[in-house]
Amino acid sequence: MTPAFERLQQQLKQLPGVGFRSAERMALHLLVGKPGALPVLVSALQDAAQSVRRCTRCGNLAEGDLCSICADERRDQRIVCVVENVPDLVALERSAAYRGVYHVLHGKLSPIHGIGPADLNLSALLTRAAAGEVTELILALSNDVEGEATCHYLTEHLSSGAGIKVTRIGFGLPSGGGVLYADSVTLKSALDARRDYA
Amino acid sequence: MTPAFERLQQQLKQLPGVGFRSAERMALHLLVGKPGALPVLVSALQDAAQSVRRCTRCGNLAEGDLCSICADERRDQRIVCVVENVPDLVALERSAAYRGVYHVLHGKLSPIHGIGPADLNLSALLTRAAAGEVTELILALSNDVEGEATCHYLTEHLSSGAGIKVTRIGFGLPSGGGVLYADSVTLKSALDARRDYA
Repeated sequence: MTPAFERLQQQLKQLPGVGFRSAERMALHLLVGKPGALPVLVSALQDAAQSVRRCTRCGNLAEGDLCSICADERRDQRIVCVVENVPDLVALERSAAYRGVYHVLHGKLSPIHGIGPADLNLSALLTRAAAGEVTELILALSNDVEGEATCHYLTEHLSSGAGIKVTRIGFGLPSGGGVLYADSVTLKSALDARRDYA
Repeated sequence: MTPAFERLQQQLKQLPGVGFRSAERMALHLLVGKPGALPVLVSALQDAAQSVRRCTRCGNLAEGDLCSICADERRDQRIVCVVENVPDLVALERSAAYRGVYHVLHGKLSPIHGIGPADLNLSALLTRAAAGEVTELILALSNDVEGEATCHYLTEHLSSGAGIKVTRIGFGLPSGGGVLYADSVTLKSALDARRDYA
């Protein structure tokens, strides 16, 4: 095809889950199938790039100062769930199992990749916790070395006088997952996380 | 999420093969994962929308007057393969089995959908054929009622004096396809298209 077509295909291929063929199909859709969709997509992209920023309180996506969750008075503002990034927050919201608020770190501590406390949205969380409005901090960080290090750092730096209950989400078998199909590390987590039953 | 985020997600969902979840993942990628990719995508879209147009000879995508195929002197300009749309042309090019040129109709005749000869890139093809430079016209139109009607219209309106050989691509079992798995209409086409063997 033409050079501009190939540059567009190349850019579409950068999107997650899009391969060479899908990018070609999308570019053809936008240029010949439904050319009216192209300017609408461009303006949606520009509009989102311009108006979407970080919530000043929690780091989630927002259009004003606060995101829709921090601004929602029906959510329990005293329970704060700490997540690594916005997609993790979206996954938790999708479960509709949580009525507190969030704090997005935008990463996890990883000395091996040169990511230290200053690179994350950590000090804002410590300030938020020290202000005395938070009763529980739920650490919903990943079940790996970096997640562990980040949890460790947080508990070390929380002012002990604040009386905040700190919990970490459960580890173990995923819903519908059989023991046979779980990997060894998951099984180790599941054994470590065993609870009294009946 | 935010309204602008949702509008972007809605637009990404219009792309072929993209569902609600993939659109969410793409929007998050563009807004938080790799925000640098967003302006590059926008400019690739705008650039393509501005510079890609129709080849004045065959109707394929082009950046100048002629598309890269019509402009390629190593391709046999006397053999013209008639296709319904640009994705069909792309599929044929991908097979690397064809060294002639194309003519893109941008649709097929369909009285039931109100698509008549004037809605297609048909008269340009008839003019091209009448000019005497074409020796063979390969009808690579779909194996359905509309494809059949379009082929019929074309053969009826080609000036009989031009001495152009008109062929239609073969119908039958797809490569790797067993008889057991083919639908009845394909099997009927395959039987009708049987050839002397050995």
